[in-house]
Amino acid sequence: MAEISKVVLAYSGGLDTSVIVRWLQERYGCEIVTFTADIGQGEEVAPARAKAEALGVREIYIDDLREEFARDFVFPMFRANTVYEGEYLLGTSIARPLIAKRLIEIANETGADAISHGATGKGNDQVRFELGAYALKPGIRVIAPWREWELGSRESLMAYCREHAIPVDFASQKKKSPYSMDANLLHISYEGGVLEDPWSECEEDMWRWSVSPEAAPDQPTYLELTYRGGDIVAVDGAAMTPAQVVEHLNAVGGANGIGRLDIVENRYVGMKSRGCYETPGGTIMLRAHRAMESLTLDREVAHLKDELMPRYAELIYNGYWWSPERQMLQAAIDQSQAHVNGVVRLKLYKGNVIVVGRQSATDSLFDEHIATFEEDAGAYDQGDAEGFIKLNALRLRIAAGKGRGAGGH
Amino acid sequence: MAEISKVVLAYSGGLDTSVIVRWLQERYGCEIVTFTADIGQGEEVAPARAKAEALGVREIYIDDLREEFARDFVFPMFRANTVYEGEYLLGTSIARPLIAKRLIEIANETGADAISHGATGKGNDQVRFELGAYALKPGIRVIAPWREWELGSRESLMAYCREHAIPVDFASQKKKSPYSMDANLLHISYEGGVLEDPWSECEEDMWRWSVSPEAAPDQPTYLELTYRGGDIVAVDGAAMTPAQVVEHLNAVGGANGIGRLDIVENRYVGMKSRGCYETPGGTIMLRAHRAMESLTLDREVAHLKDELMPRYAELIYNGYWWSPERQMLQAAIDQSQAHVNGVVRLKLYKGNVIVVGRQSATDSLFDEHIATFEEDAGAYDQGDAEGFIKLNALRLRIAAGKGRGAGGH
Amino acid sequence: MAEISKVVLAYSGGLDTSVIVRWLQERYGCEIVTFTADIGQGEEVAPARAKAEALGVREIYIDDLREEFARDFVFPMFRANTVYEGEYLLGTSIARPLIAKRLIEIANETGADAISHGATGKGNDQVRFELGAYALKPGIRVIAPWREWELGSRESLMAYCREHAIPVDFASQKKKSPYSMDANLLHISYEGGVLEDPWSECEEDMWRWSVSPEAAPDQPTYLELTYRGGDIVAVDGAAMTPAQVVEHLNAVGGANGIGRLDIVENRYVGMKSRGCYETPGGTIMLRAHRAMESLTLDREVAHLKDELMPRYAELIYNGYWWSPERQMLQAAIDQSQAHVNGVVRLKLYKGNVIVVGRQSATDSLFDEHIATFEEDAGAYDQGDAEGFIKLNALRLRIAAGKGRGAGGH
Amino acid sequence: MAEISKVVLAYSGGLDTSVIVRWLQERYGCEIVTFTADIGQGEEVAPARAKAEALGVREIYIDDLREEFARDFVFPMFRANTVYEGEYLLGTSIARPLIAKRLIEIANETGADAISHGATGKGNDQVRFELGAYALKPGIRVIAPWREWELGSRESLMAYCREHAIPVDFASQKKKSPYSMDANLLHISYEGGVLEDPWSECEEDMWRWSVSPEAAPDQPTYLELTYRGGDIVAVDGAAMTPAQVVEHLNAVGGANGIGRLDIVENRYVGMKSRGCYETPGGTIMLRAHRAMESLTLDREVAHLKDELMPRYAELIYNGYWWSPERQMLQAAIDQSQAHVNGVVRLKLYKGNVIVVGRQSATDSLFDEHIATFEEDAGAYDQGDAEGFIKLNALRLRIAAGKGRGAGGH
Repeated sequence: MAEISKVVLAYSGGLDTSVIVRWLQERYGCEIVTFTADIGQGEEVAPARAKAEALGVREIYIDDLREEFARDFVFPMFRANTVYEGEYLLGTSIARPLIAKRLIEIANETGADAISHGATGKGNDQVRFELGAYALKPGIRVIAPWREWELGSRESLMAYCREHAIPVDFASQKKKSPYSMDANLLHISYEGGVLEDPWSECEEDMWRWSVSPEAAPDQPTYLELTYRGGDIVAVDGAAMTPAQVVEHLNAVGGANGIGRLDIVENRYVGMKSRGCYETPGGTIMLRAHRAMESLTLDREVAHLKDELMPRYAELIYNGYWWSPERQMLQAAIDQSQAHVNGVVRLKLYKGNVIVVGRQSATDSLFDEHIATFEEDAGAYDQGDAEGFIKLNALRLRIAAGKGRGAGGH
Repeated sequence: MAEISKVVLAYSGGLDTSVIVRWLQERYGCEIVTFTADIGQGEEVAPARAKAEALGVREIYIDDLREEFARDFVFPMFRANTVYEGEYLLGTSIARPLIAKRLIEIANETGADAISHGATGKGNDQVRFELGAYALKPGIRVIAPWREWELGSRESLMAYCREHAIPVDFASQKKKSPYSMDANLLHISYEGGVLEDPWSECEEDMWRWSVSPEAAPDQPTYLELTYRGGDIVAVDGAAMTPAQVVEHLNAVGGANGIGRLDIVENRYVGMKSRGCYETPGGTIMLRAHRAMESLTLDREVAHLKDELMPRYAELIYNGYWWSPERQMLQAAIDQSQAHVNGVVRLKLYKGNVIVVGRQSATDSLFDEHIATFEEDAGAYDQGDAEGFIKLNALRLRIAAGKGRGAGGH
Repeated sequence: MAEISKVVLAYSGGLDTSVIVRWLQERYGCEIVTFTADIGQGEEVAPARAKAEALGVREIYIDDLREEFARDFVFPMFRANTVYEGEYLLGTSIARPLIAKRLIEIANETGADAISHGATGKGNDQVRFELGAYALKPGIRVIAPWREWELGSRESLMAYCREHAIPVDFASQKKKSPYSMDANLLHISYEGGVLEDPWSECEEDMWRWSVSPEAAPDQPTYLELTYRGGDIVAVDGAAMTPAQVVEHLNAVGGANGIGRLDIVENRYVGMKSRGCYETPGGTIMLRAHRAMESLTLDREVAHLKDELMPRYAELIYNGYWWSPERQMLQAAIDQSQAHVNGVVRLKLYKGNVIVVGRQSATDSLFDEHIATFEEDAGAYDQGDAEGFIKLNALRLRIAAGKGRGAGGH
Repeated sequence: MAEISKVVLAYSGGLDTSVIVRWLQERYGCEIVTFTADIGQGEEVAPARAKAEALGVREIYIDDLREEFARDFVFPMFRANTVYEGEYLLGTSIARPLIAKRLIEIANETGADAISHGATGKGNDQVRFELGAYALKPGIRVIAPWREWELGSRESLMAYCREHAIPVDFASQKKKSPYSMDANLLHISYEGGVLEDPWSECEEDMWRWSVSPEAAPDQPTYLELTYRGGDIVAVDGAAMTPAQVVEHLNAVGGANGIGRLDIVENRYVGMKSRGCYETPGGTIMLRAHRAMESLTLDREVAHLKDELMPRYAELIYNGYWWSPERQMLQAAIDQSQAHVNGVVRLKLYKGNVIVVGRQSATDSLFDEHIATFEEDAGAYDQGDAEGFIKLNALRLRIAAGKGRGAGGH
C-alpha cells in the first residue's frame, strides 16, 4: 500500500460518504478534501460543509455545476439523440465525467495524490469516475472503499458510525428509501429492493419527480421549443440557459406524467440489472430534437447519426466521455448541427409527448412545392423515377437473370 | 413502346386503379389480370371481383395474405426492433415486397409480361414494388401509369371516368378523406392535404384506428405477451397466429389511444414529406420485444443489433426487402433470436405502453445473485473491477502521460 | 428542350470533347466555354487553347489545379486510409468533385446556364460530375452528350468530324491505346478492350507509369516520409507541397514497380466492371499513413476510423464528395489527425512497399517501458489482467452457467 | 486460494511450460494433465510425451488439430476478408479459441477443475485462452502462472529448473531466438528483443518461413485457386483439405518472398506493441478471396461485409471467438458465401501477390454485355442514368436551393 497524503473525496454529506471520510482517515492516515456538487439533484448542498467540518475536514469544496453540466455534457449528448439500449437516456452516466473532471481539478489545486468515491464495485459508476480520472491525470491514485472494505451492509455501516462517533441522523435513515437512488438535473434513478425481481411491477410511491399518467391533468399542455445549432435556447419564446431549460422541462414534464422508464439494462461490468428512471425533461428533449432534425437535417446525415448513435451512447454509458473516440464522434455530431434551427411545438398529455408542429424559417429542407400531392408545376419530374429505379435495380436484375434471384425469405 | 400482351395490376377496386384498368386497355391494348389482396386493410376485398368483371377483366385474383404478411414480413422485421428515422414503424414499406412477390407469381402463372401499380412517381411505393419485381423476375416490364399519363388531378380522373364509362360511386368520392391513405394489418397512414404544412397540427377526425389518449379509458389494460424465438406466440396465455396477434394488439392498443405518430420523414426519392401513422399493435410489439430481449439477449448481441438496425430499416424503407444484403442481415438477426423466449407484462393506458414485468424461465440472463445490492455470497468479486478499470484505462493513461490528455470537451 | 445560351464544357482537347463542342453548338445553338485543367494527367494542357479557338470558342479557361487537387482532395482522402472494395485507391473518383466545382465556378463567372462533360452513360463519372454540380448550383442544367447523341462508336465520331470539319490528328488516333484511360496526379486507369474478360491477364505494354516488378531495380530504395497532422510534409527531409509529394512518390514508386492494380469493381450504376490502375504514390502513401497512425493514434480512434472508412470510400466513389454526410465524416477524420506527426521509413523493392521504421518524437503512444518483454519496473501490473478478463468474461460465464454456452462454431 | 485437484495445462514441452508443470505441482499440490497440440507450428509434438512423463505427469494428451484448425477457424475467418488494423491476419488470435476449446474438453474428460497456460500477463493470449475457457465452462478455474509467480526473467526460470531438477536442454536454450515467437499453420510471429524499438528495421535472419523478396526466384509462379462456398477446395486443380491448402500456400508463398509483415499493433490490454509476422498462405488467401468475391458477390453485400469486418476482426483479436456476437456475425458472413464459387488465377513474384484472372462458370455477376464499352445492343439504357442522378441529387439540390450548398471542403 503506497503512501497517500491527501485524497479528494466526492462527498454527498450522506451516511456512506461520511463513513468513507473517517475510513480514509483511519486506513490511509491521510488528509481529506471533500467535494460536493450541486448538479441539480434537488437537495441542499450547503449542509455538507458543516458535516465535513465535523469530521475534521479542512479543505471543503462546494460547487454549483448545474450550468456546466447542462451546457457541456447534457446538451452535447442530446445533439446525438442518444439512447442506450433503445430506452435509457443516460442520466447517471452523463454526470460522472463532470464529477471526475472536478475531482481532478481539485486534486491539482490542493496537491492531492488520490481521489475517492462512494460507488460500489458492481456498478458502472466506479468505471466512469475512474476512467475519467485516469484520462485527465494518469498518475492519480484512486481509492474505491466499497471494493476494499468489509462494510458490505447497512448494518455494518451503522455499527462503524457508532464505533467512530460519526453523527448519523437515525430518523432520516429509518425513513430512507428502500431503493438505491441517484439524482441530478437530468434524472433520478432507482435500483435494488423489490426491483431486483424483473417481473415485479414498480410501486407507485417509488417515483419522486413525476406524477403518474393517471394523476396527471386532464388537459394537455402545449410547449414551443426554440432550437439554435441543435440546442434549445428558448421555451415558449422565453430565452433560457441550458440548466433552466432542463429544469423547466422537468417541471412541466413531471407534472404531465412524462419520463418514467422501467428497464433491464446491461452494465459494462458484465451483468444485467433492473433500473427505473424518471427523466421528464430529457424525454421531451429527445422527441423534440428528432422533430427539429426531421425538418432541417439532410437525410444521409440523419441516417449516419442514427448508425453512430448506439456506439456514442455506449461510450457514455461505459464511462468513456473523456476518450479520444468520444471526441472524434462529437466532432462529427456537432458538425451536423449547424442548421438545426427552428421551433418544435409539442403537446404533453398524461405521459405522452406528442409532436404537433415543427418549423424553421431559415433551415427547413421540407420543400412543399416538391412534396405536394397536388400539381407541382414541374418542380419534380416523375419520369426521373424510372431511371432511378432501373439503375438501383440493375444489380438485382443481373443477379436474377443469372439464376440468383431472391428465393425464399 | 414495346409490345405488351398481358399485365398484372395491383387492383384495389377503387377509383384510381379502376381508371388504370381502362387506361392500360386503351394505351397498351393488352389483357389485364387484376390482383386484390387482403393484407388486413380492413376493407372488403370481395367487391373487387364484380368491379373488375365490369371492366372486362377475365383473370381475377383475390387473395387473403394476412397470415403470410404477418408471419414472413412483419414478424421478421420486428425481430430487429426496426424503426426508420427513430420513429416510423414501416407499416407501408413492409407490405410492398409481399405485393411485389404475388404480382410476379401471378405473372408467372398467367403468362403476363408486365405488372402495373397505382403508386405515384414521387413516392417510395413505386420503388418498393419495382425493385421487388425486378429482383424476382428481371425481364418483367413495369407500367407505372402515374409516371406516364396526364391524369394528374382528381378532376381529370373523374373526367376520364365519365368519358370511358367507368362506374364511380360519386357519393363515396364526395365523402372521401382529404388525405392520401394506405392501410394494412400493421398500420394506416395519412399524407397530403393540410398535413403538407409541417407546422399544422393533425385534426382529431383524421385518425381512424385509435381513440385519442384523451378519449381512452380511465382504467389501464394489462397484457401478457409470450415470446418464442423472438416472435409473439400467445397473448394473455392464449395461443395466436401471427396475424391474430397483430389484429388483437391493434384492437386493444387502438382502444387505449396507442400508436399514433406524426413525423416528417425522408423519402428514398430525395424529398421530405409529412406523414401520420397509426400503428397500435406495432407500437406495443416494439416495446415488448425490446423488453423480452433485455432479459434474454447477450449485451454485445443487443448492441450489435442496435447498430445494424438503422441500416436494416433503411433497406426496408427503400424497397430492398428482396435484396441479398437484407437477407444477409436477416440471417444475423434471426440467429440472435433463438433464446428470446419468455413473457412480457405490459400496462396500456391512454397512449402509454408501460413495461411492468418480464420473465424467462428458460433463457433469462439476469442473475439476481450477482446483480443484487445485498450480499452476494461471493458470486461476484468486486476486486476484479480494479483490474478491469485499470486495463481499460491504460491507453488513456499512456496518452495523458505523454501530454495528450483529454483537454476541452 | 429548354433554351440554353451558354455551356461550360470540361474540355480535354481530344477527339471526343472536340466533337462535343461542335455537337453542342449545333444541337443547342449555344455559346461554349471550354475548361481544361492540369490535374497532373501528364499531358500538356496549353494546346487546348488553339484547338478550342479553332472550334470558335471565345471563352477558354486553362487552369493548373494540381496543388488544389492534392491539398484539398487527395490529402484529406488519405487521412482516412481510404480504399474502395479493399483495393481501389479512388484515383478517378477523387478528381471529379474538383472538376465539378471548377465548372460551376466558371459557369458563375461566365453566366453560363449549363455544364457539359464527356463521360458516358454507363459509368460513375457522369454521376460524380453531376452530383457535384447540382450540390453546388442546384439550378444548373447538365448536358451529357453520350446519353443523348447517336455517336456510340469511334467510327461514328470520326464520321462526325469529317462532316463537321473538325480537325483530327488521324496519326495519333491510329496509335491510340485500345483502352479507355483516365489520368491525374494520383493515378492512371485502364478499362475496356481485352480487359472486358476478367479472366484475361493484362498485357505488360498496357501500363504507362510504372515498370513491372520484374523490370524494377535489384536494389531497394529507402524513403523517409515526414507527417504533420496526418499529411506528408517532407520526403527524405526535404519539405514539399502536397502536389510535389504525390509527384515525387509517383516517380520513385513507379520506378520500383509499385502501385499496379487489376480488379473487378462494382459501379454505382449497378454493374461490375474490370479496371486496371497505376497508383504508385498513393500505394506508398496508404501504407505509410497507416504506419504513422499505428504509432500515434489511439486504438479506439483507429478502429472507429477503420469502421467508418468503407462508407467514406463509398461516398467518394459514388460521387458524394460535396454532400453533407461526407463533410460530417471528414470532420471526424480530420479531428483524429492532430497527433499524427512523425516519420515513417520505407523500403521500396520490386513492387513491395515495406515499412521498416516509424517514430514520433512528440506523439508516439508506444510505451516501451510497458510493452517490454523485460522487467518493466512496475509500469504495468500483470495482476490487473485477471480482473480485466474476469469482468469481460462475466456475461459469457453467466450465459454458460444458464446452459447457453458457446456450442458449435 | 481454493483447493485445486487437477489442472489441464497447455504444454509445449519447452522450458517455460515445463517449469509451469513443476510450479503447479508445488504451489497447488495438484495433478497435472498436459495437452500438446499440433496446430501446424512445424515442430514435433511427440517428444512432449517423454518430457511430461519425466515431470511425473500421468495424463498426457497429444492431438493433431491441424485440420480442425484450418476448417473450423482459419477458413471461416477468411470468408470475412479479416484483417486487424488494416494489416494483421490474426494468425495467433485465431488459434487460441481452438486451444481453449480443447483444454475444456480435456478438463471435462479428466475431471479437472482448472486449466493453465503459459501466456504472460501483458499480452492478448491470456485473454483469448481465458475468455474461451469461461465461455465454454463457466465454473472452470484458470491458473496463469505468469501473473502469479516471481519468475519474471529467463535467469530466474533457469534457476528454478536447477533447483527443481527440471531437465533443460541448455544447448538449445543458448541457440534460442532473441525473439518471443509463436507459430501455427497460419503464421509465425516475432516480438521482443530489438523489435521493441519501432524505428529499428527487422534483421533478415529473424524470418524463418519465407525467403526475402530479394532472395526469391526471378521467375514468377502462377497458381489457380478453386473456391466453393467461399473456401478454397483445390489448388491448380488438385483437391485439397483445408489444412493442405494452407500448408501448400505457405510453401509456395514463402518460396516467393510473400507474407512478411512488420507492424505496431494495439493490444486489447491497452498498450501498443511491435510485432512481425510471416503469413505466406494467408496473404495469398486474402487477396484471392477478395478477387473471387469481386466477381460473384453482390455490391451491397460486399460493402456490408467490408463495414462489418473491422469489428469481426476485433472480436477475434480480443479473444471473443466463443461469444454470441461473433457467432451472430458469422451467420451473416457465412450466409453471404453461398455463391462465392469459381477460380482465381494468381501470379506470385518476389513478395507480390498479383491477381491476373478470375472466373465463375456458375456465379459470376459480371455481365459483359452490359459492362462493355462497345455497343451493348440495348442491354443498358443510358437514359436511365439521368433519372438516377437527378433523384440522387434531389436532396442536395433542395439544400443548395435553400442556401445550404456545399461550401468549403
